[in-house]
Amino acid sequence: MALHAAILAGGSGTRFWPASTRAVPKQMLALTGGEPLLRETVARLGGLVPPERTLIVTSASQVEAARAMLPELPPQNVLGEPQARNTAAACALAAWACRLQDDDPTLITLPSDHVIAPAEDLRDSLAAAAARVEETDGLLTLGLIPTRPATGYGWIELGDEAATVDGHRVHGVRRFVEKPDRAKAEALLAAGGHLWNLGMFAWKAEAFLRELATHLPQVAEPLAAVAPALGTPGQADALAAAYDRAMGISVDYGVLERTERLECLPCSFHWDDLGSFAALMRHLEADADGNVGSGARLLVETADCTTWANDGELTALLGVEDLIVVHAGRVTMVAPRGRAEEVRRLVDGLGAAGLEDFA
Amino acid sequence: MALHAAILAGGSGTRFWPASTRAVPKQMLALTGGEPLLRETVARLGGLVPPERTLIVTSASQVEAARAMLPELPPQNVLGEPQARNTAAACALAAWACRLQDDDPTLITLPSDHVIAPAEDLRDSLAAAAARVEETDGLLTLGLIPTRPATGYGWIELGDEAATVDGHRVHGVRRFVEKPDRAKAEALLAAGGHLWNLGMFAWKAEAFLRELATHLPQVAEPLAAVAPALGTPGQADALAAAYDRAMGISVDYGVLERTERLECLPCSFHWDDLGSFAALMRHLEADADGNVGSGARLLVETADCTTWANDGELTALLGVEDLIVVHAGRVTMVAPRGRAEEVRRLVDGLGAAGLEDFA
Repeated sequence: MALHAAILAGGSGTRFWPASTRAVPKQMLALTGGEPLLRETVARLGGLVPPERTLIVTSASQVEAARAMLPELPPQNVLGEPQARNTAAACALAAWACRLQDDDPTLITLPSDHVIAPAEDLRDSLAAAAARVEETDGLLTLGLIPTRPATGYGWIELGDEAATVDGHRVHGVRRFVEKPDRAKAEALLAAGGHLWNLGMFAWKAEAFLRELATHLPQVAEPLAAVAPALGTPGQADALAAAYDRAMGISVDYGVLERTERLECLPCSFHWDDLGSFAALMRHLEADADGNVGSGARLLVETADCTTWANDGELTALLGVEDLIVVHAGRVTMVAPRGRAEEVRRLVDGLGAAGLEDFA
Repeated sequence: MALHAAILAGGSGTRFWPASTRAVPKQMLALTGGEPLLRETVARLGGLVPPERTLIVTSASQVEAARAMLPELPPQNVLGEPQARNTAAACALAAWACRLQDDDPTLITLPSDHVIAPAEDLRDSLAAAAARVEETDGLLTLGLIPTRPATGYGWIELGDEAATVDGHRVHGVRRFVEKPDRAKAEALLAAGGHLWNLGMFAWKAEAFLRELATHLPQVAEPLAAVAPALGTPGQADALAAAYDRAMGISVDYGVLERTERLECLPCSFHWDDLGSFAALMRHLEADADGNVGSGARLLVETADCTTWANDGELTALLGVEDLIVVHAGRVTMVAPRGRAEEVRRLVDGLGAAGLEDFA
């Protein structure tokens, strides 16, 4: 079995704006102080999937930057989507692209912008997931054993145990619960048997394309039409035509919730989707006053503030509390820490204010 | 009479940091949205003192920038002080430099970084002041009729009326009251006969140098030693030696409070010393939510905030109130509006934090 990986890097840069932007989305940033998240995602697969079998699916505008960031990948492995069409189309494109490289490829599909440790545990789970779908010809999603009643994630209710693969249990999937309210999330956590949906999948390319054709022809057909052009000079035009027609829908909603062939593999590594500046705080070391941040800082009578600055810049705070203070590119952004999730409202407001250039 | 002007532009850039810095102090900024304050100060004298008789005394590091900003001035009229020695030394240097240009010059000396309007009223008061000191051979300070019990200024208690010059009354000076507390300031305002000391003076150069020699030899002697070198290739070395020896003291404290020859000319134009970001707000138009600022702004659920940004930059605020948010150069600064006066504490803290480069 030659295992392939498809890393979905289509994020648009609104959650960490202005640190992330359309030009430099979250996955291209070293948010936690190490390497850019996309590089860390590729590195995490080391030993499981080699660079020549690792695909990146990103926006067309990010292709050159991603290639430059990942020189170990063959340039053609970085695929540019001409417009954002959510994850179903991206998964389909990845499946077709794998088939260019192998007759009957198995692939794992995963996000580009999460924090996961230890990498070995992730690889171990992914290897078991890949082995399972080789055997079943079905689809598989990784589910994380929850540690808190999170309201921001999708949850998966496990069905019966179906098998054990290399020490990993594999279950059927009873249903999906999308972003429950707090009371519901607490009930799910207390009940057990409910996992967080990580957006990390395993399937054989043929199996995925078969299920896609059955449940989501609005994506399957346009993307199938692209396949003959992949790797040819006509690729960009074919992609443009296909993405004009393809439905924008998540692979979870469009395929995984509809198929009968889905299984879930529970896993338990440390994981964070870094959904906002608030999440970022969990990965940076706070000073005695609860302040976290990157770059040079001068803090006087300041507590519980999160800061972010361009390299070589200083953030100086006097007498403030509970703020997020970001300067990046040509933008200074300030908001209360508790409203980190609302930063995208600023991004959404740029257009109407004639400030599109700052998005 | 050939009237000269000396504009003291030695400000060090701590009050509006990081908008103002050592490299670009307050007087070099267009803080109120028009021209840089120094240029506005020169322009305000138009018709009273021509450029060729206008001197600028600034720090040596600012000489080139000031010359570039004021191309109408002969380059030698911009004098660089090798180190900051407060206003007594600067006034002495200006007096000696005027004597290079005229035998018996009268000069007005004024700050470079205040907002004054209308200019005509200022010129009218300065002209009367100059006429008075031509007659008396004494020293004269302008006093502003106060409009509120300000605690941040020096106050002057008027003595008896001594004369009327072109419709302006001139009084003796009874005493100086330096930065009174609130109760004291209210009493001074209620009592009448107490004016704000604007730091704007008139005297004949000879008269000033005579009083300086009498009351402040610690400045008079080093600066007298510079005089023969002014306008020669030895000027910079002579200044360096003189400023090494000269006492750092204000002209108010070192000369004006000690001389018997001081008079005060009351005046009543609009004046603001722009002492902090809080003062700046009085000169910018607020939106309906009380926000004022320069540059592109995107404000969501934000009230009573003051912003400042580099040209071409955006300030985006969400859900905050009563903040000063500044990005300039390579620094982002945030503080409550009510603590604008404390911004200098950040500047003072830079050295100890190893962040001198940002001062």
